[in-house]
Amino acid sequence: MSAERTWTVGVTGATGYAGGEVCRLLAGHPNLRLTGVHAASSAGRRLGESQPHLLPYADLVVQPSGPADLAGYDVVVLALPHGASGAVAAGLPDDVLVLDCGADHRLADAAAWQRWYGSEHAGTWPYGLPELPGQRGKLAGARRIAVPGCYPTSVTLAMAPALAGGLVEPEVVVVAASGTSGAGRAAKPNLIGSEVMGAVSAYGVGGVHRHTPEMVQNLSEVAGRTVGVSFTPTLVPMARGILATCSAKVLPGTTAETARETYLAAYADEPFVRVLPEGQWPTTAAVLGANTVALQVTVDPDAGRLVVVAAVDNLTKGTAGGALQCANLALGLPETTGLPLVGVAP
Amino acid sequence: MSAERTWTVGVTGATGYAGGEVCRLLAGHPNLRLTGVHAASSAGRRLGESQPHLLPYADLVVQPSGPADLAGYDVVVLALPHGASGAVAAGLPDDVLVLDCGADHRLADAAAWQRWYGSEHAGTWPYGLPELPGQRGKLAGARRIAVPGCYPTSVTLAMAPALAGGLVEPEVVVVAASGTSGAGRAAKPNLIGSEVMGAVSAYGVGGVHRHTPEMVQNLSEVAGRTVGVSFTPTLVPMARGILATCSAKVLPGTTAETARETYLAAYADEPFVRVLPEGQWPTTAAVLGANTVALQVTVDPDAGRLVVVAAVDNLTKGTAGGALQCANLALGLPETTGLPLVGVAP
Amino acid sequence: MSAERTWTVGVTGATGYAGGEVCRLLAGHPNLRLTGVHAASSAGRRLGESQPHLLPYADLVVQPSGPADLAGYDVVVLALPHGASGAVAAGLPDDVLVLDCGADHRLADAAAWQRWYGSEHAGTWPYGLPELPGQRGKLAGARRIAVPGCYPTSVTLAMAPALAGGLVEPEVVVVAASGTSGAGRAAKPNLIGSEVMGAVSAYGVGGVHRHTPEMVQNLSEVAGRTVGVSFTPTLVPMARGILATCSAKVLPGTTAETARETYLAAYADEPFVRVLPEGQWPTTAAVLGANTVALQVTVDPDAGRLVVVAAVDNLTKGTAGGALQCANLALGLPETTGLPLVGVAP
Amino acid sequence: MSAERTWTVGVTGATGYAGGEVCRLLAGHPNLRLTGVHAASSAGRRLGESQPHLLPYADLVVQPSGPADLAGYDVVVLALPHGASGAVAAGLPDDVLVLDCGADHRLADAAAWQRWYGSEHAGTWPYGLPELPGQRGKLAGARRIAVPGCYPTSVTLAMAPALAGGLVEPEVVVVAASGTSGAGRAAKPNLIGSEVMGAVSAYGVGGVHRHTPEMVQNLSEVAGRTVGVSFTPTLVPMARGILATCSAKVLPGTTAETARETYLAAYADEPFVRVLPEGQWPTTAAVLGANTVALQVTVDPDAGRLVVVAAVDNLTKGTAGGALQCANLALGLPETTGLPLVGVAP
Repeated sequence: MSAERTWTVGVTGATGYAGGEVCRLLAGHPNLRLTGVHAASSAGRRLGESQPHLLPYADLVVQPSGPADLAGYDVVVLALPHGASGAVAAGLPDDVLVLDCGADHRLADAAAWQRWYGSEHAGTWPYGLPELPGQRGKLAGARRIAVPGCYPTSVTLAMAPALAGGLVEPEVVVVAASGTSGAGRAAKPNLIGSEVMGAVSAYGVGGVHRHTPEMVQNLSEVAGRTVGVSFTPTLVPMARGILATCSAKVLPGTTAETARETYLAAYADEPFVRVLPEGQWPTTAAVLGANTVALQVTVDPDAGRLVVVAAVDNLTKGTAGGALQCANLALGLPETTGLPLVGVAP
Repeated sequence: MSAERTWTVGVTGATGYAGGEVCRLLAGHPNLRLTGVHAASSAGRRLGESQPHLLPYADLVVQPSGPADLAGYDVVVLALPHGASGAVAAGLPDDVLVLDCGADHRLADAAAWQRWYGSEHAGTWPYGLPELPGQRGKLAGARRIAVPGCYPTSVTLAMAPALAGGLVEPEVVVVAASGTSGAGRAAKPNLIGSEVMGAVSAYGVGGVHRHTPEMVQNLSEVAGRTVGVSFTPTLVPMARGILATCSAKVLPGTTAETARETYLAAYADEPFVRVLPEGQWPTTAAVLGANTVALQVTVDPDAGRLVVVAAVDNLTKGTAGGALQCANLALGLPETTGLPLVGVAP
Repeated sequence: MSAERTWTVGVTGATGYAGGEVCRLLAGHPNLRLTGVHAASSAGRRLGESQPHLLPYADLVVQPSGPADLAGYDVVVLALPHGASGAVAAGLPDDVLVLDCGADHRLADAAAWQRWYGSEHAGTWPYGLPELPGQRGKLAGARRIAVPGCYPTSVTLAMAPALAGGLVEPEVVVVAASGTSGAGRAAKPNLIGSEVMGAVSAYGVGGVHRHTPEMVQNLSEVAGRTVGVSFTPTLVPMARGILATCSAKVLPGTTAETARETYLAAYADEPFVRVLPEGQWPTTAAVLGANTVALQVTVDPDAGRLVVVAAVDNLTKGTAGGALQCANLALGLPETTGLPLVGVAP
Repeated sequence: MSAERTWTVGVTGATGYAGGEVCRLLAGHPNLRLTGVHAASSAGRRLGESQPHLLPYADLVVQPSGPADLAGYDVVVLALPHGASGAVAAGLPDDVLVLDCGADHRLADAAAWQRWYGSEHAGTWPYGLPELPGQRGKLAGARRIAVPGCYPTSVTLAMAPALAGGLVEPEVVVVAASGTSGAGRAAKPNLIGSEVMGAVSAYGVGGVHRHTPEMVQNLSEVAGRTVGVSFTPTLVPMARGILATCSAKVLPGTTAETARETYLAAYADEPFVRVLPEGQWPTTAAVLGANTVALQVTVDPDAGRLVVVAAVDNLTKGTAGGALQCANLALGLPETTGLPLVGVAP
């Protein structure tokens, strides 16, 4: 396939954070050309009103977001609230590449969907995390891809090698700090700046966050057995970024050294996953705006636990960058095409 | 003892954050009168140069911090780097109330001190956490008190009822987010604003943070058996506050309801510990500048873990407020005298 | 009047930021006792739901906010949107002390009100800025007081000595940075954390901010002639605080030294205004939560301008603290009663 | 010149913020290839230790920063403290393109340099602000370029059209808010996170900031007469970005409409300068990481002043992006090559 070939892309939900990040990354992609933006609430207005940072697209007029409005693109990116993707996708031809940044098509178990989301399951699409064992092949040539959630991206990549390698027991404890963009752009009283600045808070405690079954699904598949996940998300005063601290009890024989070797081997060929040099711990600042995951692993011999910390930008590798990485695979482009490896720091 | 009686107080380390917070709280205490400030590096300068928020004390001249310089106070507060308190305290008369905000006199086990701090153990003083079972009585009338560390304050209060009540197994996993003031006022490259704003990072991972043995000591005493603690501290972009997320596997019979009842009962009479109404989760914003701890507890039945989240201001209840709470007990004043119950929010 | 006498206080708008700050300060006031909280939208709910930092008042039930609901208090504090105070105040007896934290009763010129707010003028009350020449006497014993706006508090105190002392021409340029709490607690899309963190923006540029006529009124009265004010407010990523940078062309003879002397003399006896030592410039951090204003003044001889920088907490001295300072004067209490002089830093 | 031609680039000061940003942008530039990094203090260490966000360059070893160490590059970027560039540049061949991000070669007036910096003037190089009238031509083919300062970039672009167009009197008042990265990476006590978060402060007040003579030089040249600049910088709690609020008294005939037309005309063909649609005001968030300047202009008829607000990323268009824009011109590449037009938001 020629490097010069281009595909047209339409983004729906383009006035939100995930959709805006897709647009930002498309501006730097040589083969994907953003030709239309759609949204439910701002149709008819210039994109620049809601997304002033998207300077080259400022004068694009936002179009409606019904299924019929999305006809004619080579690639359609759905950045919609959960529950909305199914109907939209159903109206698109099979040969259009559809990337769903929402949760609708991630879970394989319809009952799990029903339990956690309380609506009918829209179906299961190939899961867009190429770094999972065997997953890359399923995405090559695919035309429907379920982009992983931001927390599951970080937690799955953090714990998969330990579980696949039999280093730990199948019970994982995760506490993750997230920037506020993970909560979306809706103006809710608890999300206004005065409330979130200078404050850390917990939410969705006790296993009730909807990303939990996605983590369980991913880690169980990797481990080849059911993995329990205790997940507590917290909100920290920054716009972007997730730092996930994950741990599990070590099985006999696991040391900091064997853990490190396992992780280095697991990700040796992954362009977007970086196991940091010994002694250096991840910071979200280093991955801001980049499609990368920074990891570090150690073992606490006193507590008998393996601890992994992962940093990811929830909007980039955690959503929009992950989506375009899948698009590259689906379209036969080199996987890293157009995706930033460098974070914006400080 | 008359409510009108006053004691003179000298604070050493007054140009740092912990010392500055002691001064701030003394300004609102009716019985304790700040009459002298000391510090190693700024002696001879006005306090207002380093602590411009302490308006009423701006023109106090900082004095040297040697043992002889601290003579003549009724109460001396030590806010010094670890390892420095022992020598200073040794030079003070037995009837002077000495509150050590540093770590030197917290650990009962000299070998543990040696392992974690690498120097000779200065000795063990009554541990200044009145909310621990049986501890309040040991502080009444005491003249040497070891003020708890900020992380141990939050984690101990978070997990003590569950361990004392036999709700959980004795293996606790803690991930705590801390504001940068917990790292002190020294100008280190990784602490400058450009590095910490917009960033969350982990440090001291794998059981190497020096607050770990203090948590183990406290929780083991409460549980009546050795408790393992896996502790990961993270640094978040705010100046003050700790949010500690703590969990442990539940023992049979423990439910969200029994857990809640246990916590409500444990803290029913504690003026500074608040178990929040059901469904409300702690935020550090609500305890900023207050001598309070906000807690919430639940059980995740899928993961089989009890989860407790605690919010505390590391400088107030976590250090300086905790110190003055102990001073009140030691001097026979009502325990809540002069201590703020209201946080500064938003 | 006995120091032991207490007055009951009702606060309406208690679930907002200004109202919440009034409650916070009342918790530390020995003579004013908060006995009721009111709000339009949260009536019937516990105050702790919306104001978790107000621990001692958490279980107060929010009452409706109609005029009849406010009967029976000795003191009523109105923390309402502009336009709402007039009707509420009209229903309260003359001997009740009413403090209006809103704009309704600040402007003396009904036409100016009409121009800037587009509604009928509710009337003019004594203006609650005791530091203005001659103003303190008007507040003693008053029963209706218009609490100044946050920006006008900082700008008036910053420029009054220069204009009263004939140091500058009567054209003032102000650029002020404000924390987001100044915009209130309503959930607006441009105020959510993801938008304001990591960002500075201008708003109300070109003389359209409604605090402008209040500044013009104050400074013109001080100067004895009409003063022009070019005012640009900006929003910065913090919850509280205003830093106002004010300048005007110097008249012949004005130097940094004469300016400094003028300011030191003007505020020598003011308990809440601090002209900083030479070379030290204000930071909002030092006045956070305190009822103080920090000022510094200099002259730029190249540009021929006097420059004053003022720091104030918009919610404390800029609103709620200013209100209680006025209450002290109105009720015959020492002016500083119950008001914090110490900021919460870092 | 072929689009495929590449030039090798060496960056000295690569472990600082300006140097790091040059490296970040080089990672996205198709014709410039970073082949060596240099720094005074970290020589011999991996770049990833100090710049973990520069993933593709993490394993580059930092080399010393003496003149001899910089031999052999096609392009050398100097990101050094002021006073250091002259000696380094003197040792480089004339045909090497040298971009000085420091102040040393910006001022045309040696006496002004001497007054403001107190050292001998290193000389004057072509000034790298292509948007200044007539300046673009001087940069084409140049081999020595003085990259403008961050504040002067924003202020010059903000006020040049008004002064060139005779809209205002030649006395400009500027108050600018800057993120902390503008103060560099040195660990100073006033720059640690605990001090800058939640705080706005002024510094360099009264015309003493060293960027003042550069603004005066630029604006005077544009105006054809001496322009006075009253400049007050303030530090706000974010890592990156400058928001400059600039104003001057209008001359007769200047209205909001004529001002807007003048600005639209002045920047109609500039790829990196955007005059925002009417009613939309700049925010630094929209230009974060982008080589763009966002401007808005209005006239306050009451105060009789034209007000312009400009947003720029101090490290991108304000330093490193501006440098590469000049490099493009100097090397005959399209001016926009490899430079981001899209900001990273939220």
